This record gives sequence, structure tokens and C-alpha cells, in this order.
Amino acid sequence: MFAWDPDRIYAKYLIETAWPLGQAAEIMAGEQSAGTFVRVAGETDELRARHGARVESIVELDSARVPSLPGAGLPKGHKGEPVYRRAEVWLSWPLDNLGPSLPNLMATVAGNLYELKPFSGLKLLDIKLPEAFLDEYPGPQFGVAGTRRLSGVQRLPLIGTIIKPSVGLTPEQTAERVRQLVEAGIDFIKDDELQADGPHCPFLERLDRVMRVINEHAERTGKKVMYAFNITGDIEKMLRRHDAVVEAGGTCVMVSLNGTGLAAVAYLRRRCVLPIHGHRNGWGMLSRHPLLGMSYIAWQKFWRLAGVDHMHVNGLRNKFCEDDDSVIASARECLTPMFDRPGRGCEVMPVFSSGQWAGQAPETYRRLGSTDLIYACGGGIMAHPGGIAAGVASVRQAWEAALEGQSLEEYARTHVELAQALAKFGS
Amino acid sequence: MFAWDPDRIYAKYLIETAWPLGQAAEIMAGEQSAGTFVRVAGETDELRARHGARVESIVELDSARVPSLPGAGLPKGHKGEPVYRRAEVWLSWPLDNLGPSLPNLMATVAGNLYELKPFSGLKLLDIKLPEAFLDEYPGPQFGVAGTRRLSGVQRLPLIGTIIKPSVGLTPEQTAERVRQLVEAGIDFIKDDELQADGPHCPFLERLDRVMRVINEHAERTGKKVMYAFNITGDIEKMLRRHDAVVEAGGTCVMVSLNGTGLAAVAYLRRRCVLPIHGHRNGWGMLSRHPLLGMSYIAWQKFWRLAGVDHMHVNGLRNKFCEDDDSVIASARECLTPMFDRPGRGCEVMPVFSSGQWAGQAPETYRRLGSTDLIYACGGGIMAHPGGIAAGVASVRQAWEAALEGQSLEEYARTHVELAQALAKFGS
Repeated sequence: MFAWDPDRIYAKYLIETAWPLGQAAEIMAGEQSAGTFVRVAGETDELRARHGARVESIVELDSARVPSLPGAGLPKGHKGEPVYRRAEVWLSWPLDNLGPSLPNLMATVAGNLYELKPFSGLKLLDIKLPEAFLDEYPGPQFGVAGTRRLSGVQRLPLIGTIIKPSVGLTPEQTAERVRQLVEAGIDFIKDDELQADGPHCPFLERLDRVMRVINEHAERTGKKVMYAFNITGDIEKMLRRHDAVVEAGGTCVMVSLNGTGLAAVAYLRRRCVLPIHGHRNGWGMLSRHPLLGMSYIAWQKFWRLAGVDHMHVNGLRNKFCEDDDSVIASARECLTPMFDRPGRGCEVMPVFSSGQWAGQAPETYRRLGSTDLIYACGGGIMAHPGGIAAGVASVRQAWEAALEGQSLEEYARTHVELAQALAKFGS
Repeated sequence: MFAWDPDRIYAKYLIETAWPLGQAAEIMAGEQSAGTFVRVAGETDELRARHGARVESIVELDSARVPSLPGAGLPKGHKGEPVYRRAEVWLSWPLDNLGPSLPNLMATVAGNLYELKPFSGLKLLDIKLPEAFLDEYPGPQFGVAGTRRLSGVQRLPLIGTIIKPSVGLTPEQTAERVRQLVEAGIDFIKDDELQADGPHCPFLERLDRVMRVINEHAERTGKKVMYAFNITGDIEKMLRRHDAVVEAGGTCVMVSLNGTGLAAVAYLRRRCVLPIHGHRNGWGMLSRHPLLGMSYIAWQKFWRLAGVDHMHVNGLRNKFCEDDDSVIASARECLTPMFDRPGRGCEVMPVFSSGQWAGQAPETYRRLGSTDLIYACGGGIMAHPGGIAAGVASVRQAWEAALEGQSLEEYARTHVELAQALAKFGS
């Protein structure tokens, strides 16, 4: 491996190309720094040495006879059947080129290079940033510890759910659903990402109705359930909604990251006094193809640095296309420091959701090695045969079993809600 | 075709699925509105009818034996070799669900659906929005007419170029390059998207040096060259840079759209008094795969409504992967009203770039049917054998030839700069 220079930005890619690998990597490096298609006046060797991106390493992988993406070309004068070689490539840039700015970083490491002709595949796999970024951006304000403090949940994951149907409930109906959930002992509730501030369920009215239920329950029991209000929208409105959540005694705000964007989320973070729950909807566009876009590992680093506290990672045996290895890799990454500076690793709480119920708890715990997560169930709680409270209890019991190293079947012998869940949802 | 309801949001998709097409479309509609994987309490028929997304039309296309994207499933009980059918599908949503908000619109039409298991391909092709969005968002402030007014270029395209090398020039060196270009008669210059406010070429210093050259030239000749200063970055900094550009007498700001994000660009627009030049770097991530992501047609509508004035569309015979038909379709769309309200069509100026020189002018004109564009050349101007002024002249001559309906070869007989360009760049 190469030595990390603390003043350089590093990015790792998976590429596929019919060009010689070294040449293809140099083309990427050139396009994303001092180079042009044709060398221009003023592009001196000294300038290229100081400001050009550097190819740090190339590790060849497998190859293919058929290009993964259309539109790629062949090297000049190429004869015969092309071979599309795959490789992992690290590039690096001097921080001096752009300074510690996330929007500019995106243009540098994930900009025009996706359309370069030599590539029939190109995916950003990882980034490694100078600490200057940490001086510029605050990172998550609450993270794991702050979320646990605000929710009062210390040992287990936060057991959560999402208000469904996604859209169509009035503020009153939403609050009624919340009442059932808080009485059932839930720790965390979130708006659906489709529910924000539509005329049918205006944000301020939903907030008011919901917080009355949550505050009343908190007064009575001492437990303030964390509700992630979806404040997604234009900036002035997001800030107004955030302030209203604070005013109403709420403890979390949610933002759809992709549709809102990096600069707005960073801006919100600097004015925010609550944890930011980051919803990744639209993420599939960037990730669904194995040789295009961006890995979750790279993507989440942008948002953590911008200041998000909770990041969605899908869940084991989910209802979407993603496999379990990918889900666990994402979640582990959320809990892994992205900088070495003490207390400034920017760790965030991974949010497991989609098809989750008691059943995935032991494997989630075993593979993640942590309970620092939000575990959001839908049907696994709402459709439990014993009712919502039994649904919540079944999930909590499953996590207790996981922590004690018992199998669910074993633990279910003395825990009826878990037994009911296994009977209904286990197959 | 179906009837447009002025209070509904429409989105058109290209899908690929092993499910029966009607069922697959209903799954998309359900996931992105009132539905859940399992029907939940409160999800009444009335609620679904009022708030559910509606499948408006399905047009079957071709099919494939191999899925285009990995991770897709097969319908329950499927037997035999699957067939992956492709179709164009229109869905619609009541505006009432979300209200006229671009970030929320993105979560609705381009959110979680990319990861749905029934789909081995899913691309957003187009959107059609209620006029309520036009009441909420200002759209482009300058567009074609405003850009022509500020640049003083009325009949031909704005002939432009990009400062290269992308990074590495000091502010002084940049200004020196600008001096050569303005003296050569250019209309438009832009920063590279990699050049923003790095320590090596601080924004304010670059602005100051460059605007001194441009202002001095304007005083002497009456022609103020439009320079798109790359203000991309965090919001406070973007605003500060914008204000500094205004103060210095500049006439355009540039933003990398994807890395900055929709909410920040909409926020900038409301505080901006200059045309916003929208750079699409990173766009390849969303578009490179034919069955994933988003078409340019759909994508540019978000940014136009948010208030961008110039949109990059690549160029004919470009150096990237995109074919010419796609480039022309993008550019035509930029000039096509997206609303019927008089004066509020949100038309923007397409920016042609990448490998452009005099040679593509006639075909660009013939296929676009307009000169309302920015035509940005690199080597086609800088590497002209007669020098930069001759390079600019050759491109302008090519556009004159195109307007007069003469071939370049014909026109070159009486225009030496064009003749030189044809000899050097034509092959």
C-alpha cells in the first residue's frame, strides 16, 4: 500500500475498461484535476506535478468480454475482441486544489468522470479526507450517545416504527396512531419520507397533535418517545419546521438527503439543535448497478461530515434488492470513525428498516457487534397477533435474547410475545 | 392517452420486470404513496382512492432474458425461464399528498422505488407538474433573453470557453488567460467545475483579478464578457461569493448542481441577482445506465423550476459517452416550455461543450433549430493555428455559415480562420 499524506484527498474506485489499466487511471486523474483532453498552454509539468491528481495504486481484478455499461470506447487502433478489465484504483488530490468543501469535493471525486469514454464501469468505493474537513464541518451533533440520552434508551437498540399508511392519514389520525405506539412502549417513531407538509396533513398541525400525545405520555411515564418529524423541503421551511419541533418539545427531525442536497443539510446542521435523521430514499439510483455510481461506504461519509446523526442502512432479509452483506457493511461503517481525532470520528447511528421484526435481531447483533442502532419494524410490530404492545415486546425480547446469547426459540419458551411473533412471522 | 388532471403530479418511467406489467406498476404506485408491503390498519379503500398513486398508462416495449440490473426477484411461484418485460409507465399522484415542494417531489417520484425487488430496471423518464409549483418557485430569472441582454450577444450563440488547466493557475495566471480571451473577442468564459475557492486560487482574488480585466475591456470596447464564476460550496460561502461577484461587476455565477443540491440552489436563486450557470457534473451517475436513474428530460425540470438559467447538455461528437441524439433531445428540452402559463415556461439556455469547435455548428443549428445556446469550445479555440482570436472567429464564422445555410467548406473559401480550423480539426 501507499503512504497517506495528511494534506491529500483520497478516493478509491472500481473501474472497468478496455484501455490498459494504468492509462485508464491516468485519464481519470487528468480529467479530474489539471488535465484536459488535449494538453493546453500553461499546463506545465510543474503545474501537473503540484495540482494533478495522482494514481496511488491499481489492483487488477477480473475481466469481462461484454462491457457493463454502454457508450464506452476502445483505445485508438485497438484490434480484435476487446477485454474489459476491472480494477480497484486509488487516486489522490492535493487539498490545495479545492479546500475542505463538501460540494466541491463531490465535483472532484464524483463529477464528470462517470461519462469518460474509456470506462464501461466506474464506481466510487471510498474516500479518505484530510482533517481540514473536520475543522470546517461540525459532523454529527448527537450521534449515538446524544440519541441515547434524548430517548432514554441505554442498552438495547431504539425499537422503532414508521407511521403507515405513508400518506393519507390526517394529523388527528396520525396522533391517534402515535398514541397507540407510545402506549405500546415504543422508543422511536418516524414520519414516512412521503409525508412532509402536504395540504392533506399539514406539518404544524401534525406536529401539534403528535407532540401533545408524546409530551403527555412523557409527563405521565417519564419516557419521551423520539419522533423523527419529516421537515424535508426548501430551506426556509425546513428551518421553520425545525424551530417548531423544538418549540413543541420534539427531539428529532428527518430529512430526505438526496432530494434536499448536501449544502442544505450542512446549512441546517449549523442551525439545528436536534438529531438529524437522514433518509436515504433515491439511494438506489446511485447504488443499484455494481459498476456505476457510489458505494454506501463513500456516500455516507459526505452526510456524516455534513452533520447527519442517523443514517438509513436497510435491514437484514429486507424487502428490497440489497443483500445482507451489503447492509451489514453499511451499518458497520456508520459506527466506524472516519477520522482519528479523539471524539471526532463522526460516528452515526445506523437505522435498520424494511421487513424487520424480532426474527433478524440475533443475526443483526452478531454481525454488527453492537446495539447502537435504531431498529424500525412495520408489520413486525403492527401486525403482531397480540397487538402493538406485544409487537414491541417481541422485538425487545428478541434483542434481549441476542444479548444473552440465547436462540430466539429458547428465549421464546419463557416469553410469549416472542413466541407469537415466531409463530406468525417466522417461516 | 389519459386526461391530465391539473391537480395531479405525473411521472413517466421505463421499467423492466419479470412480474406481470400491471402488477409491477401497481407495486410502484403503492410503494410511493399510500401502500405498504403488507396492508395495514387504517389503509382503507377510501384512503387509497384519495391518496394512492394511480397507474395512468402502460405501454409494453421489448423484453430480455437476462435482467439488466442485479438483485431483482421473481414473482411468487414463478416457474421456468423468466422473461423481463420492458414498458413505459405513467403514474400520477394527488398534489394534496405533498404540496408543491421540489425536495419532497424528488422523494416521491425518485425515492425508494429504485430498490424495489420486482424491478430489474427502472428509470424516471419525465415529469409533468401542476401549476402550483410555478406559484411556489420562481424558475429561471434570466433565461435566454436575460443572458443575451447581459452579454450583449443577440443573434448568434454565445461563443464561450472554459479556463484550462482546470486547476493549478493562480489568480494572476487566470486573469492573464482571460485577457487573451476577451481581446480575442469571446462572449463567455467559465471557471472549470474543479476550480472554486481552493487555497491555491482563492475565489475573491481570482474574481478581483479577472473582473479588472473584464471591466477594463468593457470600458474600452463596450462589450462586457460574461464570466461564470464557480461559487459552488456551502450556502453562506456561495452567497458571499455571489455578492462579491455582483460588487465586482460580474454577470454570472456557476454552481455544480449535484454536489450542492436542490434546496440550496433554490435558496440561492431567491437571493441571486445574476444568471445561474448550472453545471451537471456527476450527472453520469444518474444517466449512464439505460435502465437506471433518471433521464435528462426529467432531471433538468427540477433545476429549471429551482431557478437555474443555463444548463449543460454536452455537445455533438463529444468526448464523453453520450450520443448525439441524446444531446439534441436534452438541448431541445431546455428550450421547451415546461408550463403553459405565458412567460413562465421556465426555458433555459442550453450549454454545449466537450470537444466543440467550428465543425459542429451547422449540425447543432440544424438539429436544434435555434441559436439560443452557449457554445463552449476548448482546444477548438485555444489550439487554433492562427491563435485565440482566430479560434473565436472560426467558431463565429461557422455559426454565420450555419445561419446562412452554407456549408462550412463553402463559407471557408472567403473566411480564412474557418478554413484554418477545418484544416486542423476536421478529419
